[in-house]
Amino acid sequence: MTAADHDYCPVHASIELLQEKWVLHIVRSLLEGPHGFNELARAVGGANTTTLSHRLDRLSRLGIVDKTVESTMPPRTRYELSRAGRELETVITAIDRWGRNHMQEGVDARSRRVAQATETTAETAV
Amino acid sequence: MTAADHDYCPVHASIELLQEKWVLHIVRSLLEGPHGFNELARAVGGANTTTLSHRLDRLSRLGIVDKTVESTMPPRTRYELSRAGRELETVITAIDRWGRNHMQEGVDARSRRVAQATETTAETAV
Repeated sequence: MTAADHDYCPVHASIELLQEKWVLHIVRSLLEGPHGFNELARAVGGANTTTLSHRLDRLSRLGIVDKTVESTMPPRTRYELSRAGRELETVITAIDRWGRNHMQEGVDARSRRVAQATETTAETAV
Repeated sequence: MTAADHDYCPVHASIELLQEKWVLHIVRSLLEGPHGFNELARAVGGANTTTLSHRLDRLSRLGIVDKTVESTMPPRTRYELSRAGRELETVITAIDRWGRNHMQEGVDARSRRVAQATETTAETAV
């Protein structure tokens, strides 16, 4: 066992993975069902195809996404969540709920509302 | 209302925020209690201080993190989660559970185990 193994934390490692650009968007899209590559690129909101391809390879190596190449001409690649991948639904559901409660109005409106609430609280506290 | 407002999705916006490097690590650390800046930089695992500072400013503008400057000499800055920020605990808890179930052994061990499981499944399916 190396020092790196000794320090390994599965939660830290999961955050490192999920904060990689597009990973959460990919999981959210695939929870709706299998996608082809181009379909997925559109669904996640215009990811750079090289980056998207790297992310899908990494998720595939980790056993989170299953990649199937259909023997059509031209060959069609299909991506879907594995069982471990589908279990990320709890994370997406938690983000979904939080987002609907706290990011509903958009960043600018939210910032303004928070500023107003802070002023009101400050007045109440006097 | 502009076209951008019309297309606004709070869940997409939340994913955009949470996939910004260090944001999930910051939330995870602050769920344990308030932190000073340097303490937080160490807790999140060696974030670049400029990036960390930008993230904290953004989370503060969004009303997710409260920033307090204590009038000591030198002044000490304290960061803590607001009520909206603390509600991100559901997201961190979901990541925590998923990570302990699926990233326990580290990426390499996990990839090997998945490969073995796939072979076993293939044999069973014959």
